[in-house]
Amino acid sequence: MENVTIRILAQQLQLSSATVSKALADSHEISAATKKRVQDLAASLNYTPNPYASSLRKKKSKTIAVILPEVADSFFAQVIDGIEAVAQDKGYHVLICLTHERSKKEQAILMEFLGGRADGLLLSVTSETGNPGPIRELQEKGIPVVFFDRVCEGIDTARVVTDDLESGYKATEHLIRGGCRRIALLSISTTLSISRQRMEGYQQALADHKIPFRKSDIISCSHDAAANLRVLKRLMSRKERPDGVIASVEKLVTSIYLTCQSLQLSIPGQVQVIGFSNLSSAMILQPSLTTITQPAVEMGSAAASLLFKALGSKNYVLKDAKVVIPSTLWVRDSTTAGEKGRQQDLAGRQGKRR
Amino acid sequence: MENVTIRILAQQLQLSSATVSKALADSHEISAATKKRVQDLAASLNYTPNPYASSLRKKKSKTIAVILPEVADSFFAQVIDGIEAVAQDKGYHVLICLTHERSKKEQAILMEFLGGRADGLLLSVTSETGNPGPIRELQEKGIPVVFFDRVCEGIDTARVVTDDLESGYKATEHLIRGGCRRIALLSISTTLSISRQRMEGYQQALADHKIPFRKSDIISCSHDAAANLRVLKRLMSRKERPDGVIASVEKLVTSIYLTCQSLQLSIPGQVQVIGFSNLSSAMILQPSLTTITQPAVEMGSAAASLLFKALGSKNYVLKDAKVVIPSTLWVRDSTTAGEKGRQQDLAGRQGKRR
Repeated sequence: MENVTIRILAQQLQLSSATVSKALADSHEISAATKKRVQDLAASLNYTPNPYASSLRKKKSKTIAVILPEVADSFFAQVIDGIEAVAQDKGYHVLICLTHERSKKEQAILMEFLGGRADGLLLSVTSETGNPGPIRELQEKGIPVVFFDRVCEGIDTARVVTDDLESGYKATEHLIRGGCRRIALLSISTTLSISRQRMEGYQQALADHKIPFRKSDIISCSHDAAANLRVLKRLMSRKERPDGVIASVEKLVTSIYLTCQSLQLSIPGQVQVIGFSNLSSAMILQPSLTTITQPAVEMGSAAASLLFKALGSKNYVLKDAKVVIPSTLWVRDSTTAGEKGRQQDLAGRQGKRR
Repeated sequence: MENVTIRILAQQLQLSSATVSKALADSHEISAATKKRVQDLAASLNYTPNPYASSLRKKKSKTIAVILPEVADSFFAQVIDGIEAVAQDKGYHVLICLTHERSKKEQAILMEFLGGRADGLLLSVTSETGNPGPIRELQEKGIPVVFFDRVCEGIDTARVVTDDLESGYKATEHLIRGGCRRIALLSISTTLSISRQRMEGYQQALADHKIPFRKSDIISCSHDAAANLRVLKRLMSRKERPDGVIASVEKLVTSIYLTCQSLQLSIPGQVQVIGFSNLSSAMILQPSLTTITQPAVEMGSAAASLLFKALGSKNYVLKDAKVVIPSTLWVRDSTTAGEKGRQQDLAGRQGKRR
């Protein structure tokens, strides 16, 4: 079936395209009678305005885009919920695009948005991202960009993050309080802002407790589950086996649990484990998992709110906005320090969220 | 900074806009020298074609959209991986839009795509979807739609599904073989195609084993985790407590495990549990979870491949295409029948995938 266009409506009504277009836009220049004729025919022929054409005219897509590495991670899935709640209130659509941790893919996606397919972008960069070029171009074109969680240091714009350094410190100190003296940190990147900060917190906690830092205890994992199992099997078969493990990314939790299962190492008896994770199933794991839980929904809402401030006012200066929302330590059975099932603050006292 | 347009390039070079446009499109009508002048200036001014304008001309967005209820479910997250792999090969971008199980939101999203924002759609409907109106309109406009997993019965188009009836049967029979006689089925919808088929399989298995079907054993859950805990606590406190539970949706697994934890009911000693789930953490739950695992990645690839067939040829008839990819029963510690850690077929024999 042929698409019904303004030109077809105009031909059938023997009006000019401009008149039809104005009638459809309810212009005061057009008589009520003509408007009715145009609108009736448009309805009966099932006419839909072409959003590309109408976006060109209005220069607004009423759409924001979220660009992030993956959704198979409960943190990112929950961030999206936070973003969507705000966008829904504002009457905006949300488009989600996945980079799968590839900076090339990220660049191609960003370039696609250069022409105004979305009014603004929320971005959490890949673990490979180095070149901020396309992001700068977007900013120069007047398309605001807000970072959440993973930021690109070279770019001046709003960012919504959690306290990664403190969280890394908190996780490490929690294991030390439980008696761990040889703590391995599982990571997927050494360049990503969040990874570096968690690592820094880890090193600070070791130093504060006079435990020597060994480079070989930082374990580089990847996005390949089978490869991670091999790496972790080697780690946990070392002569000087770690007595504590920090999984700094959610997916590494399953890998370290399976490794301990296959080597018949008991958690927390022989190895204590803490994971950065928002998994609702943390409570029903064998054993239940002590987690650093990031404020995912809150981070999504905060990032979207900043973006809409920038979309709402040309004078709003995004680059000065930085929001830090703290993460929470939830103590469960995979570690031995602290009282189970309670949130704990940095000093190990139970109680209020910090 | 002002957007660089073809008109601005034309002014600076003292050429017509048409000449600049043709030069940028590498037209044979334009001399090599002129092309070079145009392309050099475009590069130095950082000119980007407006994708809306260029989509209008080409009538192709080189984009497909995936519309689905949520991504906080490992099945959907894995389907997206399958779709993206195929789209990447074809040089297409993928936009993901979430309906959050609201048919109103779904309709608004579908309407947005009526004007050609994407060349084709992949759709898994909400648990509320009744009115297929917008989907028909898309088809009439020549925008192909392919269903995956959750289909809308009133619409004639390609669908990629798994064997939900057989899976419901398989799950139920597995519990019966393990000695269960009072099996509860946890569901989130009574209208959704997949829910009805799983329920039908459940009823058939009960009938084949001469176990009476009781309507009160079908438990309606929702997307509210706290409400589900209350419903399940009532269920598991009944005088005639179920000895087997089928969680027909992944998120209900956590709810039933937590309920059994809080009532101190042992799994599988007092209650056996099987879940429809693609969670990688199924293996490390307490106890590890017997699952019906859907072929998520394969379903995503198959659905995307069908869509690209339709986009590639006007003569390809989508409505005749139906792909059924079977699910797999993985036996673990939350049930007692069969040998653990093995895939089992319908008859309970171990071995090859069916």
